[in-house]
This record gives sequence, C-alpha cells and structure tokens, in this order.
Amino acid sequence: MHDDVKNPDPRPLRVVVAPDSFKGSASATQVAHALAAGARSALGEAATIRAIPFADGGEGTLDAVLDAWGVVPGTAATTDALGRAVTARYGVSPDGRTVLVEAAEAYGLPLVADGLRPLEATSHGVGTLVLAALDGAPTAEEVVLFVGGSATTDGGAGLLEALGARFLDGAGSPVPPGGGGLRELARVDASRLHTRARDLRWRIACDVDNPLLGARGAAAVFGPQKGATSGDVAALEAGLARFADALAAATGSDVRDLPGAGASGGLPAGLSAVLGAELVPGGILVAEAVGLDAALADVDLVLTGEGRLDEQSLHGKVVDTVVRLAGPGAIVVVVAGGVELSPAQVAAAGIAAAFSIAPGPRTLAELSRDALVELEHTAAHACRLVAAARG
Amino acid sequence: MHDDVKNPDPRPLRVVVAPDSFKGSASATQVAHALAAGARSALGEAATIRAIPFADGGEGTLDAVLDAWGVVPGTAATTDALGRAVTARYGVSPDGRTVLVEAAEAYGLPLVADGLRPLEATSHGVGTLVLAALDGAPTAEEVVLFVGGSATTDGGAGLLEALGARFLDGAGSPVPPGGGGLRELARVDASRLHTRARDLRWRIACDVDNPLLGARGAAAVFGPQKGATSGDVAALEAGLARFADALAAATGSDVRDLPGAGASGGLPAGLSAVLGAELVPGGILVAEAVGLDAALADVDLVLTGEGRLDEQSLHGKVVDTVVRLAGPGAIVVVVAGGVELSPAQVAAAGIAAAFSIAPGPRTLAELSRDALVELEHTAAHACRLVAAARG
Repeated sequence: MHDDVKNPDPRPLRVVVAPDSFKGSASATQVAHALAAGARSALGEAATIRAIPFADGGEGTLDAVLDAWGVVPGTAATTDALGRAVTARYGVSPDGRTVLVEAAEAYGLPLVADGLRPLEATSHGVGTLVLAALDGAPTAEEVVLFVGGSATTDGGAGLLEALGARFLDGAGSPVPPGGGGLRELARVDASRLHTRARDLRWRIACDVDNPLLGARGAAAVFGPQKGATSGDVAALEAGLARFADALAAATGSDVRDLPGAGASGGLPAGLSAVLGAELVPGGILVAEAVGLDAALADVDLVLTGEGRLDEQSLHGKVVDTVVRLAGPGAIVVVVAGGVELSPAQVAAAGIAAAFSIAPGPRTLAELSRDALVELEHTAAHACRLVAAARG
Repeated sequence: MHDDVKNPDPRPLRVVVAPDSFKGSASATQVAHALAAGARSALGEAATIRAIPFADGGEGTLDAVLDAWGVVPGTAATTDALGRAVTARYGVSPDGRTVLVEAAEAYGLPLVADGLRPLEATSHGVGTLVLAALDGAPTAEEVVLFVGGSATTDGGAGLLEALGARFLDGAGSPVPPGGGGLRELARVDASRLHTRARDLRWRIACDVDNPLLGARGAAAVFGPQKGATSGDVAALEAGLARFADALAAATGSDVRDLPGAGASGGLPAGLSAVLGAELVPGGILVAEAVGLDAALADVDLVLTGEGRLDEQSLHGKVVDTVVRLAGPGAIVVVVAGGVELSPAQVAAAGIAAAFSIAPGPRTLAELSRDALVELEHTAAHACRLVAAARG
C-alpha cells in the first residue's frame, strides 16, 4: 500500500446502474437488478447504488419506463394498422404531467404480420390511443411518443385524423386511409383538431435522420420491410409528396427537409407540421422520463450494458446516451453479452472498460440462460476492481 | 470529478505481468507479452510494465524460465525411461549459479507412451542429464529439479545410480533397473557418489504431499497412469518399501513419512535421503528463478492468468503463487480463458477481479485461436478501469 499517493479514506462509491435490456435474455429491469446485486456484493452497504432500467426508445421502452416509474400501465381499446380492434397500453408519469405512448402498441408491424397491406396501413389507432391516454391523465402537459416498429407509411395522417384533422380529396371527401390514399389528397383541414391534444407539448423519439421523401425517405428505405413492392414504394412516395405539399399549404410548415421526418412511415412529418411536435433522440427522452439525467449528474461509477456492444451502440443507443449524460468524472463500465468493439474504440467512446458476461467458452444459448447470474458476477468483478484501485 | 477525494496526480502505475501458459493455446511468454501489450495500450508510456512469464513447476516450466532468463537451453545426450537415446535440454541461470532441469525431458511419460513398462522404467536418464548440465555449468551451486510427468516409479534410484550410487541385491549385484527391480534390493551404497553432484544444493519442485508408500503413495496413486496393473502396483509398492528400508539403513534418513516423497515415482524419497534434497512448491522455485518474488515486492497492479481459473488454481498453481508473493497493497487481476470461481471465491483468495478473455459467445476452439488478441483486449479493459478509478 502506498499511502502517500492513494486515497486514505475514500468516500463511499456512488453507483448508478442503467442498462438496456438483453434482447431475448432479460428485460432492462432484470439486467439492472442483476448488475446492482453484483455491485452491492462487491462494494458492501456503504456504497450508494441506484438501479435505473433504461431503454433507447425502441422496443421495450414502455416497459422500461413504467418499471422505473413504478406505475401500472393504463389500457385502451383502439385499432391496429389495418383497423382491427386491439387493446393497447399507455403510461402516465407519477406526477401526472407526462403521457407516454409506445405507438407500436397500436400500429405495430408484428400485429399485422399475418397480412401486410402497406398502402392501406394507417396510424389512426395511435391517435385513438393517445386520446384515451389523455382521458386517463387529466393533468397531462406533454405527450411523449415512441414511434418505432410501425407497419404504416401514412405520414401520421391517420393519427391526426383521429385527433380531428381532415384529409380531403379534390371533391372535399376524406381520402382513403393509409399512405396509398394520400395520392388523392388535395387539402388538409386542421381547424377542428381536438383542442387539448393540439395545445399539449408533443415530443417524438427519433433516432434516424432520414427525410420524408426520396431515396433515403420513408417509402424507399422502410417501405419494403412493411411489405411494399417497388410499385407500392412508388405509390407511397407519391402520396407522401402530396402530403408534404398539402401540409405546407395548410400550416406553412415545410417538412420536406426535416431530418427524421422519414422515420416511422413519415409520422414525424405530420405531427411536426400540424402539432409542432419536436423530434428528440429516444435515449434522451427515456433518460428524462426515468430521471437518469439527474441521477447521472453526480456519480462515481456507472454500470450500463446491452446484449451486444458494437458500432450501433455508440449512436443513439442506451450506452451512447449513458456516456453522454454521465459527467467527465464518472467512470462508465459496459457489461455486455458480446463486446464487439476494440478497447481503443471503447476508450474513444468515453467508456472506461467493457466486459462480456461470458465466463469462458459458452454458446449463445448458455449465455442467455445464465445471463442474470453472469451479469451479477461480472458487475461484482468490475466494482471490486474499481474499489481496489481507489485504495 | 471529485478532486477533494481523488488523487490529483497519481504516480504512474507499476505493473507486473506474470501469467501461466494457456495450455493448448499460448505459452506463458506469449500470454505475458499479450497482457503487457494490453496494459501498455491502456496505460501509456508513463506506466512501468514488466512481463515475467511464469509457470507452476509443471509442464512448460523450463521454457518459461529460460524465456525469463533470456538464455538458450543447453542440450545433452541421455536416455528415456526405457533406456533409449534421447536428446534433452537443461538451463543455466545467467549468473551461472543454478542448473535447471525439467526431468520429463528424459524420463517423461510422453516419450515412452508407445510402450509403457512400469516395472522397468527408470530415472537413470535424468541423472545423466544432470551430470551433463553440471559439466556445462562449472560454477553451479544448485540443481533445481522440476520432476512432473514421469513414467517411472523407481524412487529416484536410477538417477542416483547415474550419479554413482549403487543399488545391490543380497549377492552384491546391481538390481535390475526400475521400480520392479527394487524388490531385490538389499543395500544402498552411496560411497562412490559423484562428488560435485553430492555437494551441491538440490531442490525439487513438489506440489503434492503424497507419501512414498500406502494407499496415497507413489505406486497406488500414480502407478496406474504410468501403465501399472494392480499386480504391478503391488510389485512397485513392495520395491519402494524395500527401497525405503535400504535408504534408512544407508543414510539414517527415514523417508517413509516425508510429505511429497510419493511425487514423481518416489524420486524425492531417494534424493532427499541420499542428497539432502529439499522439497519446495514449484511456483515458489519458479518465482525465485525468474525474479518474480523481487518484482512483486513493490508493485501496484499484477496481471496474472491461466487457461482456467478454478479451485485448483488456488492450491500451488501460478495464480496462487502470485497472490502469495504480491504485497497487500498490490491489486491482483486474473485474466483467464475460463473463470469457474464465483466472485466471492475470487475475493476470498485475495484476487481483486477475474475476467474471462471471452468477448461473447465463443467455442473453446474460437477462444484458443483468438487467445492472444483477446488476452490483450481484456488486459487493456482491466488496466483502463484501474487507471480511471485511481483518478
């Protein structure tokens, strides 16, 4: 021991545990509890350990935030992308100010995987869900919308229609639902919008910068995964182009060049023009919702993790968000199922160290089966090393 | 950053890298260099990093020590356990004081695997090898003998015979070679021993406490792996019993109760009685030989490792020796192919943290193939975490 250079009486470590889910193995809540258990076993009772399940705005976000909030989801009758009845969930923050909707609960691709109809698929059910959520949250001041996993390419027209907007053809009749129907669009009438919905703050989780139209647009890039043939893509592109023109004419807002407007079938385009919705990285919205931004403001050690740490992890995903929110004095350690970045890449990303949970040669099935105990063990080793090095 | 509690200007880390080989994947030297490269990449040029390939006295010890010494082995013509000509290697320390012999280079089991003859197998070739080594080391003061992997159960009689001792039957004729021949032993004559060999200090690496005779003895426990049938075991047991009696009569030294006398076909029995050889844990002998004991006296961080960290690792193996030699102020980190101990077991053993080199789901073959790069990566992560935690 070198007392001359080591800290003789270190302040107890303040640790925040903020992982993503390990997809297919463990929820973010399970991962967080396992990491926290490992940290506790290594650091003892003196350490402060907060477990905050996290998510990046993609699949599982609603569950992670509701877990963090400790609230039970509300449920509402609505419709899927093909207009069939479904029951969907929503969340209201404990302070009653924020309504959280994961749009895929209504317009999600898995719900209509039995028969994709890309031209007709509509976001209308998401609007119905939001209205029901607002009914259940009389003091709500904000709607936070997680929009991934859509089966639709309708620019959010269906959602807006559910809120009272009208999408009319040259004869003044409503156009058919879905992105295909937008080819007949002549005019948007937003004068009868649901007042409360209109006056709320809307924020949309958005982690891509694709524009509404063109080769990188909603139809060309995402249409095919929703069942669109090349002919369908052309039809959807034409519909969205008319949609953009009509939105500009009705609202004065041109969404053609809005980065991210091409996400989720163009939904951000309609909501930005009509409702003034803001596009925000999903991880940031989740961090705010679960209080992670505040929790990370003054902390010594952050344990985060996801199933696989790779290039994607550094772009808007959970790990990236955690690194950005953690102060420069915080040590960030990633615990992952697989670490596919080099130590140099990890260091350049502001991560002190990344460890796989694999304790030796293991198959993916074995690692998935044992994920929780190996997460706990790996966290324990990392925390004990930090504690030893602090002296 | 909390400057009030963290070390504002930490002294550059002093690191010693002292791993075992990863059997079947990488030599101790390769492992040491990979770990050192990872430490260097994480800690930069300011850190002091010494790489000391290590071994526990078992297979590969000669290579590890010679690598650490930076010397080329000498070679000598001798014989294997069945009397056939082989060329064997030995080492002389840079200061000329120590002759190092890995006995398996002569009497090793793999050399006679094509036809085991447990009753005839003799350690004579080890004696020839030692004499040749001494010829190549005129200033030697000590013989250090690593004795694992023997094909013999002759109590070291063959070795001693090569040095000039005589093992005689009731008629005064030499008994046949091997443990079987000892059944005819009536008398040991050590009066014509090679003077220089006799006057040297002899130390034998020994990590078992098996006695020479009985249910835990050399014949019963180790005989079968050398090809002994149950009848052979009984014959060898009878021979070694006569051997012990004759040694006691000739030297006054009773080796029947000497812990470890049953190692390596009883070789320590004969050498203890006739040459006063000391039995020392292999790891300690290697640590002394490579200067690890001195290197670990004043160090901040020790990286060690082996193919598999398990219960055995904590009993006389490389990791155990490193932990015992490292001061209480040193942080010991184990990097292993597989970590089969719990964090609590690891902590109880005085190890700060243990990490597998597996970066995710991998087969044993994949891990072996990529062992060196994964060793480097894992060391880099661990070192960077230590550096971050020191502040």
